[in-house]
Amino acid sequence: MAQPPEVTGTVVVLAGGVGGAKLAHGFAQLGLGHRLAIIVNTADDFELYGLTISPDLDTVMYTLAGIANPATGWGILGDTANTLAMLGRYGRPTWFWLGDRDLATHILRTERLHQGARLTEVISELAGALGVAARILPMCDEPVRTIVHTPVGDLPFQEYFVRRRQQDPVLGVRFDGIEHARPTPEVERALEEAEIVVLAPSNPIVSIGPLLALPGFRERLRHATVPIVAVSPIVGGRALKGPADRMLASLGHEVSPLGVARLYQDFLDGLVIDVQDTALADALRNMGIEPYVTDAVMHDESDRARLARETLDFARRLHGVTR
Amino acid sequence: MAQPPEVTGTVVVLAGGVGGAKLAHGFAQLGLGHRLAIIVNTADDFELYGLTISPDLDTVMYTLAGIANPATGWGILGDTANTLAMLGRYGRPTWFWLGDRDLATHILRTERLHQGARLTEVISELAGALGVAARILPMCDEPVRTIVHTPVGDLPFQEYFVRRRQQDPVLGVRFDGIEHARPTPEVERALEEAEIVVLAPSNPIVSIGPLLALPGFRERLRHATVPIVAVSPIVGGRALKGPADRMLASLGHEVSPLGVARLYQDFLDGLVIDVQDTALADALRNMGIEPYVTDAVMHDESDRARLARETLDFARRLHGVTR
Repeated sequence: MAQPPEVTGTVVVLAGGVGGAKLAHGFAQLGLGHRLAIIVNTADDFELYGLTISPDLDTVMYTLAGIANPATGWGILGDTANTLAMLGRYGRPTWFWLGDRDLATHILRTERLHQGARLTEVISELAGALGVAARILPMCDEPVRTIVHTPVGDLPFQEYFVRRRQQDPVLGVRFDGIEHARPTPEVERALEEAEIVVLAPSNPIVSIGPLLALPGFRERLRHATVPIVAVSPIVGGRALKGPADRMLASLGHEVSPLGVARLYQDFLDGLVIDVQDTALADALRNMGIEPYVTDAVMHDESDRARLARETLDFARRLHGVTR
Repeated sequence: MAQPPEVTGTVVVLAGGVGGAKLAHGFAQLGLGHRLAIIVNTADDFELYGLTISPDLDTVMYTLAGIANPATGWGILGDTANTLAMLGRYGRPTWFWLGDRDLATHILRTERLHQGARLTEVISELAGALGVAARILPMCDEPVRTIVHTPVGDLPFQEYFVRRRQQDPVLGVRFDGIEHARPTPEVERALEEAEIVVLAPSNPIVSIGPLLALPGFRERLRHATVPIVAVSPIVGGRALKGPADRMLASLGHEVSPLGVARLYQDFLDGLVIDVQDTALADALRNMGIEPYVTDAVMHDESDRARLARETLDFARRLHGVTR
């Protein structure tokens, strides 16, 4: 493990699922322990068979616990799906793959929520039991649900994402319940303690988007006095994973780090881009956003730590420079 | 399969778990279809990880669906326990073995109960999906919970039965909630339609006991005009399975078919006993209970059908003879 960087405050990572989990894992490998706080999208949470499922929270938790399935990025390594097979035998839909080990997480989360626990408490208990030192923080404790507007109608996020395999053009998104949701006290505290804020290379629309739509959250970033940097989820005109590229295009955004930068322009200080996108550096500077060019694709676990380290060093150099 | 017997009404089997499931399966093999109604103990139901578990209902359902684990009598053949392993990793107790396929049943039951469905509806849906033609009827829809009084204190049934492996002398039992429970409309209807009523070779205290303690149930049997027969769960001074022998002894009952007959004496017309207990036939007759002596131990599936057939024929001969 690398020498812990001299972090004086908290490194706050804003994350969705797989891409966010990988970068968060990189920061965890730097030995930040509890001084790493990952604020995670919960707008793609949903209910299935009466169980509350939080895909992004679980992906971050499994990745930091070292039990994630590296082939998919989500789910637990070596998991089986015998419960799912039996649910199918009972005539229930089985399009959302649920592993047997993974189900333990959903069962305990549902139990604790029914008992009145907050989602924040539940994930803290579960992650603690798996030995995760970092703070994994749901963006809010209230239920928020992404609805994707498509030519076939409004689709709950997992219907769009998993069941229909992101085949539908996205004409708009909304986050049901967002107006009644608030950043949790734990999220507020992490932001107060922050030395830097990092937007992970997650989908800007449906992963980072819900966090920014949370009442008060975006204003908080605009008025932050610490560096805010993002790692571009778009490299060479394509998304690293998932439908972010098609989604940006169908919503009228440029499918490039510039398109991403414009979505974050009102609060962003720096953007980490891939060497493939070196030519965009000047355009970013012209927007008032400092570029940092590196190999921004995380192929393996050492890439995660390297990219986290470089992002941290980059953000520190911005401290006091911008805004 | 044997020729369906000329049953004019319904064969009603009162059952607990494994022993009751085996005899019920024997009746099912006679081709009774929907004219077989099994009224099942629900007093050893319990909650674990927020899931409602009905061990006896599930044992009967899995047995009739042909997917029960023959080695244990309970659970599903070839099931794995990966969810349970993960629950253990989260620090939860794992003394109650829960298979992954089995969990699908508990998840769907819990979902449906939360939606407001009655337990009777839920097991009907599940058993129907598994192709079970017989009616599997919970004794009641209200929660009833067996508490076992022992020298170490009052124990919830599964604590006594599974966690402490029936090691504690049983000084008494009570059925919490029984005063607020009632036989369901489906149970009432089955009893109205009954051509015969058969008490399966289940534990008289904790499996059949809760049914008899249900308000109005025992009176109903006392005033029945159709034959009521039991198959003795005690053979040669020992229980066929489980702690029934020790439980009868510690509660001051004789550990023999006579001891069982005395518990049912106010409504029983006939008792099926094993050849090992032939010497007790006269004593039974003196009690006003007709004995039927046969090989009363079910070693394999053909034994189940044979014993069911013999019990049915025996009960029919009693029709109009007794009471």
